[in-house]
Order: sequence, then C-alpha cells, then structure tokens
Amino acid sequence: MTKFNVCFIILTMEKLFYLDNAATTKAFDENFDLIKKANDELFYNPSSSYNKSIKTKNELEKSREIINKLLHGKMGKLYFTSSATESNNTIFSGVHLRAGQTVLISKGEHPSVYNSAHNLSKKGINVIDIPLTETGEVDFEEYKKLLNDKTVSLISIIHSSNETGRINDIEKLCKYAKSVNPKIIFHSDGVQAFGKIKVNLMKLGIDIYTISAHKIYSVRGIGGLWIKDGIIVDPLLLGGGQENGFRSSTENIAGAIAFAYSAQKVYDDFDKNYEKVLSQKNEFLTKLTNSKVKEYLRVNSLNDNNPYVLSLSFDNIKGEVLMHALEGDGVLVSTGSACSSKKAGNRILEAMGIKNSFVIGSIRVSFSPYLDYDFDYIVSCFEKNVLRFEKNVNIKK
Amino acid sequence: MTKFNVCFIILTMEKLFYLDNAATTKAFDENFDLIKKANDELFYNPSSSYNKSIKTKNELEKSREIINKLLHGKMGKLYFTSSATESNNTIFSGVHLRAGQTVLISKGEHPSVYNSAHNLSKKGINVIDIPLTETGEVDFEEYKKLLNDKTVSLISIIHSSNETGRINDIEKLCKYAKSVNPKIIFHSDGVQAFGKIKVNLMKLGIDIYTISAHKIYSVRGIGGLWIKDGIIVDPLLLGGGQENGFRSSTENIAGAIAFAYSAQKVYDDFDKNYEKVLSQKNEFLTKLTNSKVKEYLRVNSLNDNNPYVLSLSFDNIKGEVLMHALEGDGVLVSTGSACSSKKAGNRILEAMGIKNSFVIGSIRVSFSPYLDYDFDYIVSCFEKNVLRFEKNVNIKK
Repeated sequence: MTKFNVCFIILTMEKLFYLDNAATTKAFDENFDLIKKANDELFYNPSSSYNKSIKTKNELEKSREIINKLLHGKMGKLYFTSSATESNNTIFSGVHLRAGQTVLISKGEHPSVYNSAHNLSKKGINVIDIPLTETGEVDFEEYKKLLNDKTVSLISIIHSSNETGRINDIEKLCKYAKSVNPKIIFHSDGVQAFGKIKVNLMKLGIDIYTISAHKIYSVRGIGGLWIKDGIIVDPLLLGGGQENGFRSSTENIAGAIAFAYSAQKVYDDFDKNYEKVLSQKNEFLTKLTNSKVKEYLRVNSLNDNNPYVLSLSFDNIKGEVLMHALEGDGVLVSTGSACSSKKAGNRILEAMGIKNSFVIGSIRVSFSPYLDYDFDYIVSCFEKNVLRFEKNVNIKK
Repeated sequence: MTKFNVCFIILTMEKLFYLDNAATTKAFDENFDLIKKANDELFYNPSSSYNKSIKTKNELEKSREIINKLLHGKMGKLYFTSSATESNNTIFSGVHLRAGQTVLISKGEHPSVYNSAHNLSKKGINVIDIPLTETGEVDFEEYKKLLNDKTVSLISIIHSSNETGRINDIEKLCKYAKSVNPKIIFHSDGVQAFGKIKVNLMKLGIDIYTISAHKIYSVRGIGGLWIKDGIIVDPLLLGGGQENGFRSSTENIAGAIAFAYSAQKVYDDFDKNYEKVLSQKNEFLTKLTNSKVKEYLRVNSLNDNNPYVLSLSFDNIKGEVLMHALEGDGVLVSTGSACSSKKAGNRILEAMGIKNSFVIGSIRVSFSPYLDYDFDYIVSCFEKNVLRFEKNVNIKK
C-alpha cells in the first residue's frame, strides 16, 4: 500500500504543469533569503527615529527607486500598498470626485477596479462602462463618444487584460482624453502588464498606475500605486502617516525588497522571457489547433496580445468541468480569471460579444518563462477530456 | 584602519539592547521556514477552483481558526487584513453611520483609530474624544456623561495603550454602553494587548477587535479584524470577493500561516513570557529609580499596567536627544510610540495632564520576553546621558 502511494506521488510530481500564472506566480526563492535577511537586519520600525530605523527606511527607498525606474516613472512617485486591489480601491476612494461627475471604466476591468468604481454610484457619481470590441480592447469610437460628456473626470482602463491578455493602447486613449479635457485623471491597472510587456509611464502619459508583486514572482502582501507629481489622491488608510502621509501602516520593508528584487529580475530577463513565453503560447496553440479539439475550439485571444495570457473556449463544454478534468491529469488552468471564477458567466468575454456556449466553456491558460511545459502531453489532455465531455455533455453536470 | 573598523563592529554587536518591541518585533525564525514552505506547496491562488487551490484555502482557514480560538472568538469571525491600520480604517469606513450620529473614541487611541475616526467629521458625524484620567485610562465618569447623548452609535477604545501600556477595562466600558443602548457598536484596538495580556472576546462582550502580526513576532503585511456575528461592517476593499466577500485581494496565505504560528507560540509561552517581562520591567524600574536620574524622572505608566510597555519622562530633557544618545550606547528606545514620534508633543501624555516639560522628555521602553537585557548597563546609559543633557540643556538643540 505504501509502495503504491509512493508511486502515485512520483507520477503526480512528474506531471504537474502550472498554467495559471496570471492568477499568481511562485515567488523566486531569492525572495525568501531577502525576507529573512530583512528580518535579521532591518526589522526595526521605520517610523522610529533612531539611526537603525533610518537605515531600514533607506532600504525601502532603494526598493521604491528600483521599481520606479523600471516603470520609467521619475515624474511621479511609487507608493507601496498591500496589493493591487488596495491600490485600485485607493483610486476610487481617493481621487476627488463630486456627485454629478462621471467616471469611465472599460468593461474589461479586473473586479477590484470594476466593483470599486461602480460603488461610487452610491455617491451620485455616474459610472459608465466603455464597451469592448470583439477582440477585447476598448472600443475607441464608443470611447470618443462617451468623452463628449463634459462631466468625465476619471478614466480607468486596464493595460493588459487578465482574462484575454489583450493590450489596450493606453497612450492613445490617454492622449485623446487629455485632448478633450486636460484635467481628466487617467488611471491604468498594470497588474498583468508590468513585468510582461514593456511599461513606460512617461510614454503612456497617464496619471496613476497599479502594479502587484505576487503576479511577478514575488510575495503577497505588497503592491504598488504610482502617482504622477501634482495629482491629488487622498489616502485610503489613515494613521501614522507612513509613505509620506499617503499610506499609513508600518512599512512592509521585507515585502518591498522582495518585490523590487523580482521586478528587477523579470526586467533583466525581459527579452528572453518574452521570447520563451511567445514560443510556449505558439507551440501550445499550434498543437491545439491541429488536434481533435479544433472543431470545438474558439481562441478568444488575438495573436498580437500579451502572450502570457491566453483565453480559449470549447463549445458547450463547461469550463469548470474541463478544468477539473485537466487537473486530474496534472494540468492546472483556470476558468476565466481567478478573481472572478466563482461568478457565473464571464463579464469580459460577454462584453466581447462571444456567444454563451463559448463563454461557459472558457478556459484561461497563462504561461511562465520560468517553467517548462510538455505541450504534447498537455494538448493530449485537452484532447482526451474535451472529446470525453463533448460526447457526454448531457450526462455531465 | 580595517582593524579599527572590525573592533568597532564587535563592540556594537556586544551592546545592542532592543527596547522598542511595542513599535515592532523581530519575527520568530520559524516564520520564514513556514513562509518558504507555503511558497513551495501553497502558492496557488485560493480563488482558483482547482483542488490545489482549495488545499491552500484550507490552510488559510486553519490559521484563522487558530487565532480565533486564542481570542475566544467563536461567536464571530476573524478576517485577515494587511495590517492593524487597515483593520482600524475598515471600521470607520465600514460601520454604517449617518450624519448627525456620534462616534466616541478615547484620547488615548493609536493614530490609525484617531485619524480615521476624526476623518468622519467630514461626513457630518460627531467625533468626540473621551478624556483620560491621569493614569492614562478612559475617564469612566466622563464616559458615562458622554453616553447620555443618544446619538452615540460607535465607540472605539484601545485595549492596552501603545504609549503607556495602560489597560482599559473594556468589559466594564462595553457593558455600560450596551446598557444605555444595546445597538451601540463597540470596537477595541487590541494590537498591544493580543499576545501580551489575556484576551477573551467572549468575556469582553465587544463587537469588533483589531490585532496585528508584526507586534507579536510575525511579519508585516498581515493583520486581523474580528467581527461578531450579526455586526454589519462594509468592506474597505472591493474586488474579487475574497475573505467571504469582506476583504478582496488575493489571500496572503503565507502571512496568515506565519501569523497563526507566532500567535500560538506567544500564547503557549504566555505565563512564562508575562513573568519574564514583568521582572524585566521591575528590575529596570528599580534600578532606574535608585540611580542618579531619579530627581528628573517621572514614571508615566502605573504598576498594574501591561508590563510590556513603559512610559518614562525626564524633566526638561528632549526625548529625541536622549533617545539618540542612548542609541549611541546601543540602547534602542522610542520617543513616544513609533507611529507618532514624528509629531511634536505627545497627544496621549498631554491628555493625561502631564506637564509639558515632562511630555517633551518622554521615552517609551518596551520589553521582550525573547530578549535578554543587561539593566545595570542600560541604567548606567540612562544615568550618563540624562545627567549630561541636564547639565547642558541650554546648549543642546
């Protein structure tokens, strides 16, 4: 019995392909050496004013500087938060808005933007969703029409979709908004962009940008919010006045150091990573579209997307059921983005006009340049399970 | 030259006494093994719905259960947040309050309660500070008078002061409030109490309680907010609906596991720790009050306080200057609480009616049962520096 168990474990170990890197990543091991070192040497509270505390604050500032440089963000400041969700909530709580003003967000936003923006309607603020094209990006013509409304004060558009990888042309969208009204504040959620595609805040011309650590091989409990100099955002957390008064709470120095390390590493490896992930995606898609699943398959992501995220649909096959079957074979994918997987349907794919039988059968596959995949095996698992469920669709839940 | 440097480092290493444990603590080493293990085995996003994610969620629930049990909180739920500051801000943002209603807080609150409560006045809510007695606790007679105001809807009183260690009789204060109006919501900030004095939420009878990880030998980036069943608090962070819809953001599993570990350990060691810290405090105070500083000294903390925190004042000697001089001798103390050390004066000591020449000369000494101190040496450092500054008071900045 013991022997069988051991065999089973070895088999499981051999076949585990993690393809849900858009949900979270496994932090680089170096993070933990840095965190331990910070605990040994830099555990002092930066708000204390003895020199040892000042030294810990210096390390925090170095981490901030590293990330801000990667963002090309010298005309603004990066604030550390506990997560991208906190960063996004800070915007909709902290940007000065009055009843009667309008906030535009895209239909493709992450729930932390979507839900916190829509919560503003309680305060008499109009929150309008900008439609998406069938490729998943903001519909520019519709966007221009919405900007005729002179009450638009804040715009938030995701940089790269967590659902499809689709990249919005933030530079163009921001430029147009500022041409209509230079006072409009423009935010972009860069969680799935930072570390994966090139991000140049100076070029994008935007006012606020959100990033996350755990999506780029660092730890939970730390995120970032970049704000251009001169843009006023009230704090979400009040208290001891940390982060230059913007975000109270004892500074998570170890988290910031780990975040900066991973951010620097993914950008040091940028070209190599991008090529590898692109070839992962291309190999997977080529094999999948040449397999027996092709007649059920819809590829929801475009070729020129951020290659790290791929959305697929299988006609009339429940994504949830397929995901669990694939897990049984050691292939971990997600049904839609992790953050919305518990909800019925899929707001973003629906906004792209994808028919319902494909929406329910949607699967998100997200790659990592730090992992290797056996795509022959993975595609064979898709093939086996898709064909099985297709045949038995009526007897499956 | 190198030789001298080496000597200096050794001397510094020999004499470093960290007496600022109320500001933050050095996390137990086991935290980092647990965090690394969580990264290796439990890095999956708990919001994904494959079984590996469900397993990570189970570990989160185990950590929650451990801490909730230590709090005697089975009639409520512990939510993980990123910090006590976030927990405290959540209350003043999330408890349903209307313009014209009244919030009572004590004058002895931590800035994360004090500032977020007072921020409510923008919304037309009356925020009233309950006076402190000269011992630093809530003045019960004044409290009773304030409760005659029938608009009081929310009360927040710190359990044990971060400044003086003074313990408020939360059970009595809550009981009185509920006798006046059972609908009043009662919160207590337990950051300096949890792990240091016994906390029994069932006995305290309160509705909401705040705790922090990094004050009890765990890491930054994780805190807790306990809410009694039936008490409605709106989320501060909206998004993917994590923490049962109460606190969106990808769950910090590693942080929660580390937090639960340290919490369990400090309660396993509770009696031993309490005795050790009490004897640290007593030895220090005995030696200090028998030293040459006695004529300048005021002990702001009472004997029956939480022994982990001790507030002292030296007449007409700037706390900041004394603190830096002590640091030069390897003795790390704080000027008032870390969170408010940057501000002029000291709100809490002032509220206790302590005269200004003592307020400016205040020092907070906070002990740890996991550290050992040479109090002969430490008191000799106080003696040397206090006498030096006393003589030169006019030429020092």
